[in-house]
Amino acid sequence: MNFELTKEFLQELSLAVAKRNGNYVSEKIQDLHPADIAEIFDRIDLFEAQFIYELLDEEVASDVLVELEEDVRDKFLKSFTAQEIASQVDNMDSDDATDLIQDLSEERKEKVLSKLEDAEQASDIVSLLSYPEDTAGGLMAKEYIKANINWTVEECLEELRSQAEDVDYVHTIYVVDNQNKLQGTLSLKTFLFAGNNTKISDLYKEEPIYVKTDTPDEDVANIMEKYDLVALPVLNQANILVGRITIDDIVDVIKEEAEKDFQLASGISENVESKDSVWLLTRARLPWLLIGLVGGIFGAVVIKSFEYELVEFPVLAFFIPLIAAMAGNVGVQSSAIIVQGLANNSLSYGSTFSKVVKEVGVALINGAVLSSLIFIYNIAFGEAWELCFTVSLSLFVVIIFAGIFGTLIPLVLDQYNIDPALATGPFITTINDVVGLLLYFTIGWMIYF
Amino acid sequence: MNFELTKEFLQELSLAVAKRNGNYVSEKIQDLHPADIAEIFDRIDLFEAQFIYELLDEEVASDVLVELEEDVRDKFLKSFTAQEIASQVDNMDSDDATDLIQDLSEERKEKVLSKLEDAEQASDIVSLLSYPEDTAGGLMAKEYIKANINWTVEECLEELRSQAEDVDYVHTIYVVDNQNKLQGTLSLKTFLFAGNNTKISDLYKEEPIYVKTDTPDEDVANIMEKYDLVALPVLNQANILVGRITIDDIVDVIKEEAEKDFQLASGISENVESKDSVWLLTRARLPWLLIGLVGGIFGAVVIKSFEYELVEFPVLAFFIPLIAAMAGNVGVQSSAIIVQGLANNSLSYGSTFSKVVKEVGVALINGAVLSSLIFIYNIAFGEAWELCFTVSLSLFVVIIFAGIFGTLIPLVLDQYNIDPALATGPFITTINDVVGLLLYFTIGWMIYF
Repeated sequence: MNFELTKEFLQELSLAVAKRNGNYVSEKIQDLHPADIAEIFDRIDLFEAQFIYELLDEEVASDVLVELEEDVRDKFLKSFTAQEIASQVDNMDSDDATDLIQDLSEERKEKVLSKLEDAEQASDIVSLLSYPEDTAGGLMAKEYIKANINWTVEECLEELRSQAEDVDYVHTIYVVDNQNKLQGTLSLKTFLFAGNNTKISDLYKEEPIYVKTDTPDEDVANIMEKYDLVALPVLNQANILVGRITIDDIVDVIKEEAEKDFQLASGISENVESKDSVWLLTRARLPWLLIGLVGGIFGAVVIKSFEYELVEFPVLAFFIPLIAAMAGNVGVQSSAIIVQGLANNSLSYGSTFSKVVKEVGVALINGAVLSSLIFIYNIAFGEAWELCFTVSLSLFVVIIFAGIFGTLIPLVLDQYNIDPALATGPFITTINDVVGLLLYFTIGWMIYF
Repeated sequence: MNFELTKEFLQELSLAVAKRNGNYVSEKIQDLHPADIAEIFDRIDLFEAQFIYELLDEEVASDVLVELEEDVRDKFLKSFTAQEIASQVDNMDSDDATDLIQDLSEERKEKVLSKLEDAEQASDIVSLLSYPEDTAGGLMAKEYIKANINWTVEECLEELRSQAEDVDYVHTIYVVDNQNKLQGTLSLKTFLFAGNNTKISDLYKEEPIYVKTDTPDEDVANIMEKYDLVALPVLNQANILVGRITIDDIVDVIKEEAEKDFQLASGISENVESKDSVWLLTRARLPWLLIGLVGGIFGAVVIKSFEYELVEFPVLAFFIPLIAAMAGNVGVQSSAIIVQGLANNSLSYGSTFSKVVKEVGVALINGAVLSSLIFIYNIAFGEAWELCFTVSLSLFVVIIFAGIFGTLIPLVLDQYNIDPALATGPFITTINDVVGLLLYFTIGWMIYF
């Protein structure tokens, strides 16, 4: 069935490369999809990849470049001359070409652009480079098919034949007026079965869904997802059609967005991977640990302020980790539900108050169950009643507090246009830890003294 | 531009519904996309939605049903007769129809199926119902266009015209032999520009990428993502073409997969949303809190076993939360990086040993920085040198231990085919908390006594 990259395959390939056995290598990879070859390149040494790359057809080679992971590609391109890059870029779709050129140094960027043979491609890339990467303009490609609303099907077919040369997959025909303003869309199916003399104006569907060049990529993703779209036209501020975005580019945005929340919740601040350098990994993680350290220091200050009580009743110290951990866990849970609701636009229109009320409901049940359990545990192990009450009562209060706090913080951050996912993870755990300890010792003090 | 659902819009709509003002309501919603109407229905009361639903065109009405959130749709369908459901299902794509019917009771399922007018649709649904929801068979639809490899373009066009009636968007033409075995694909573009007498066998592309009916949905998602596919053919065990999956259905799978990791990391065990009932939310959260509670009890046992040391030097208690929190944070970070690498298939083929070595590298830097900082803090506030050394040394050891542990656990779980995302979140925090405390007090005991 589909190709699966195995250790054995890689070993055989490496061996053949070491022997400079070009025929064998070519045979092994000739039927592979460029995405599979790129996956191989991501796994093997640079000099091996370079040897294999030389054996590829030009078309396949440029597809492989597009599919490579960015860091591997950057290393790869360093060994290329500007001319070599340019001849590959000529084969690419304008959006992929732009992504590749974007990562080059300013000097190389200009050199490569000046060496492109395809003048239209060069001007498309220059115009695409002007849009920020995280907007519709930065995602769109210039390869699309458009038809004038005044044409007939026959006239259109002729025009399309020449346009379609550059376009691998035709999703939709965009219908524009004489000023290139988008009027609507025409499915290839409708077009295919229409009579030759039918006018486009009688076939097209009005008012399609579209975005502007400055629409943020997350909004583009939401729109394509909501309306189940495969392609989406992009208009400039004057409503002129300037490009189209396809769903495969948006899948990455959707995935990254969901993963970003996971990373923030786990206390990782940059988009790092296991294979990144120790230095990069440390930089992504240290800031969150510093927050945790500061929280720990505050915790120490809180406990120190109850030093007298602690010396009298050292048993109070036993349950410090329990209270701190539960405060953190409940806070993360509550905030995660709100963060995900905000990300999916699935938070109901109910008021903040109603959300807090519901959270308190959940916290009351959780708190009652957990406080009872720890109460039974403490009684069973013969602890003094003061301790039993202190631990259970403060656990109950802490769970309710942490739930309310975890619900409110992401909502407040969102109000101020700060990414609410910041609220999950070490940040909220830390604050809830400290407040939880304060509540615990205060309740303990009231009960014991 | 695109429709945006505002509070004002909903209020006006509710008011009009209360006045039974059908004309006004129709006017407000007539230009809306079914996905927008479904969004409105998700937000308003059931009886309001029912009033509006009656005003919709039949085609739009069935599209709205498809787009509704499952819980809203379930409530909605309860007020329908089997006949009413059947007439809506007749309008739907086979995959959407199957999703809807799947959720009905066995009795209603049969009733609805028996009342379908479209016999082909009924048999398609019955066959689709036999596949598990989370496999390619459960995701696929029966609406696709196929051509026999022996046809000419002209013969094909005639056949396609009748097939295409049922298919909204034609992505690709699937080319099969006389036994319906998949031979390859043909893009509509190629087809459009080919001469009438050209044979399909001269036009089609061999060996497309495909999946089997029992391929898990996550693998389907990975394949479509990797090869940037818009549609993917599904074959049965005899390599007969039985359906196709489109990318819009897979976007949901990709998103759910990424979100599941976030939820597990945040200590939520079911796919819950903010608007779910208090009971459901509690059920999703309580199990993780119980793990935390048990961890807290173990923590208490650890501290209790060092009661004598604590009475002598109560200052040791001050830094309990700091050690526990840092152990948890580091563990979650390490495991999150591994979990995400496993989910993306981006973990390099390097050995487990090399990953642990790298993690130790990161931990050494983080540990050195954080231990030094807390050392300076403790010195600055005039703590005894025993405490300074105990806290800094144990923080250093704990960070290294938690990093190794956080790296290994998800890898081990993955080996045993347990979801490694289980390792992030409360589970690993709790274990690291307890072990961290043990290390802290052991080191403290060695330094003080």
